[in-house]
Amino acid sequence: MSEQMLRAEKLDAGDDLAACRSRFVLDDVVYLDGNSLGALPAAVPARVDDAVRRQWGELRIRSWTESGWWTAPERIGDRIAPLVGAAAGQIVVGDSTSVNVFKAVVGAVRLAGQERDEILVDATTFPTDGYIAESAARMTGRTLRPVQPAEVPDALGDRTAAVLLNHVDYRTGRLHDLPSLTAAVRAAGAVSVWDLCHSAGALPVGLDEHGVDLAVGCTYKYLNGGPGAPAYLYVRREHQDRFDSPLPGWNSHAEPFGMRGDYEPTSGAARGRVGTPDILSMLALEAALDVWDGVSVDAVRAKSLALTDFFLECVAEYVPAGRVECVTPVAHAERGSQIALRCADAGAVMGRLIERGVVGDFRHPDVLRFGFTPLYVSFAEVERAARVLAEVVAAG
Amino acid sequence: MSEQMLRAEKLDAGDDLAACRSRFVLDDVVYLDGNSLGALPAAVPARVDDAVRRQWGELRIRSWTESGWWTAPERIGDRIAPLVGAAAGQIVVGDSTSVNVFKAVVGAVRLAGQERDEILVDATTFPTDGYIAESAARMTGRTLRPVQPAEVPDALGDRTAAVLLNHVDYRTGRLHDLPSLTAAVRAAGAVSVWDLCHSAGALPVGLDEHGVDLAVGCTYKYLNGGPGAPAYLYVRREHQDRFDSPLPGWNSHAEPFGMRGDYEPTSGAARGRVGTPDILSMLALEAALDVWDGVSVDAVRAKSLALTDFFLECVAEYVPAGRVECVTPVAHAERGSQIALRCADAGAVMGRLIERGVVGDFRHPDVLRFGFTPLYVSFAEVERAARVLAEVVAAG
Repeated sequence: MSEQMLRAEKLDAGDDLAACRSRFVLDDVVYLDGNSLGALPAAVPARVDDAVRRQWGELRIRSWTESGWWTAPERIGDRIAPLVGAAAGQIVVGDSTSVNVFKAVVGAVRLAGQERDEILVDATTFPTDGYIAESAARMTGRTLRPVQPAEVPDALGDRTAAVLLNHVDYRTGRLHDLPSLTAAVRAAGAVSVWDLCHSAGALPVGLDEHGVDLAVGCTYKYLNGGPGAPAYLYVRREHQDRFDSPLPGWNSHAEPFGMRGDYEPTSGAARGRVGTPDILSMLALEAALDVWDGVSVDAVRAKSLALTDFFLECVAEYVPAGRVECVTPVAHAERGSQIALRCADAGAVMGRLIERGVVGDFRHPDVLRFGFTPLYVSFAEVERAARVLAEVVAAG
Repeated sequence: MSEQMLRAEKLDAGDDLAACRSRFVLDDVVYLDGNSLGALPAAVPARVDDAVRRQWGELRIRSWTESGWWTAPERIGDRIAPLVGAAAGQIVVGDSTSVNVFKAVVGAVRLAGQERDEILVDATTFPTDGYIAESAARMTGRTLRPVQPAEVPDALGDRTAAVLLNHVDYRTGRLHDLPSLTAAVRAAGAVSVWDLCHSAGALPVGLDEHGVDLAVGCTYKYLNGGPGAPAYLYVRREHQDRFDSPLPGWNSHAEPFGMRGDYEPTSGAARGRVGTPDILSMLALEAALDVWDGVSVDAVRAKSLALTDFFLECVAEYVPAGRVECVTPVAHAERGSQIALRCADAGAVMGRLIERGVVGDFRHPDVLRFGFTPLYVSFAEVERAARVLAEVVAAG
């Protein structure tokens, strides 16, 4: 056994979250792609089966009330809330991340007022945020300006209506400074919108504490909600009464079953709802959130950093010099829960890694991306991933 | 056995669709609420379980290609296409009906061109369509004008950009004249948007044949896709290259995995996609569509009319005069697949009907709504429903 293998053994023995692994369905693959699709929580299959056979099949329409379908978007939002530092009543689940970005950016522009005519967007963002922000700008008569997150404080001004930022960059794994950027946006009188896709469930977010105005996130990465599971929208309590959705579907009406011709928005998080919620996917997500019972996000963050530190050490020791270059910041304060390695033949390398049972993903054009889900990734797996990577690039 | 019971027996014996009932999970409840939530198709539970345990749990991220997740929105759209008279390649599944109404109305306005500044909307519409159309009007700088469907031809003019209509009225069950209204809209140079929620799966629609421009519909009523199952969007082939979505998410990009900063829309139906599709609900819907194998929509329509005719006859015979008034048109050409009865104490009556095993729904303030799903409702059940209704109102 190598020195790093022994270290992994010790780290696993001292890992307070190690027991959480049994809450998931896993095999002998080293799954470092939980930042793309989280593994299946063990509680999900039986709960989905119950939703299908009993709730839909037997109770049918009665389940809207008797099985709590109607209130699922807010109820599940309240389950996500503590994971992102939000008090209850501010998060609603439903629709895709892209649709929620649209609600949030248009909502932010409307909160900011008519005289502010510019939207700033993270120039390094996951593309959909930029595309949707462009549409929001076009439809609200604002101008969209892409800026590097670090340049946001200088770009802010009296014209700034809204600022759309990613908490963790999907490609590099860089963690942006949410507290200070949010404070700067607020100080400029603008409205902040954070995309939490790559941070929620992997590290503390502190939405309430840091004064975030609006936020969106997906639930199929570190929240393990399943493929295409519904996303969520956070609207800070102080803004809820003025939140003016561009998608005022009947589910957000004060009297949804009144079938009124005039639209009167409901209060609270439910104002972010649109149409009939996608119940099967919602209930899968609800079951998936059981894995968080008794888990502290701080402990998750500590293990995440330990996992990525250890991976970087193993890579440095095993992989021939010059074959890969770490794109993810080394400083803890700037690192999410993934490691992105630049590698000339990244596509081919990832293909061979997957054949060898180490699953990460390839991001065009030259990035190997490895996500570390603290609830189910072990240090032994991290060592093995680095070792197999070294063998693959040495052979390539 | 009463005369109507004998007639029901005969009608059931001659029903070519009777065998389809075994494709569903049913019990001894008379379920006349399939126009709110379709019953569970028998093939769904095992298929969903496979999607959860094997596709998600074992293959995980590989399922996006190996299990066909990525192409599901278009593939399932092509399964719906023949049910609404559309050739392949024009329907995409995903998002809620409300979100699709937004895409369709904004898309229609943009197709119509800058000089047309008015949107007409069915004044009797299911409210969400009106709310969303109002938002679309506000965000595109158009005026929204509610009109009765019958008055649409007179309301059309050079100013008309788009017209949003319901094929079947959710409340009264009235079937609007899609061919002639569509032709009138087209003749005026405007763009038609049809909401098929209450017609698709119950009667022929003929989207291609009648020159419909855009259409949306849900899949959880007569298509039995499950609670909150994803909706769909039809964009007529001739418009696809000019369809300009207000929700240009990364799934609609020509190169979705190119992660490009600039947005270039893909071609075909996929241009209507937005974010990551909700896979579990999509695959439940896909399994649900198996019930249509070998079924002709014309046969479905014939049985639907026979069921509603028979229900009206039984109600006329059984229910004390003056206790209920039929709101649904008697003429076949104006009737969808439901019967709406006005009844002073409709809420209480529906409660007692449900207790007695006859499930319809109550629509505020005074409507008893009964939906007839030809694939699983029998004539014997129709007779029983009318009989129990008579007993309930006589006792009330």
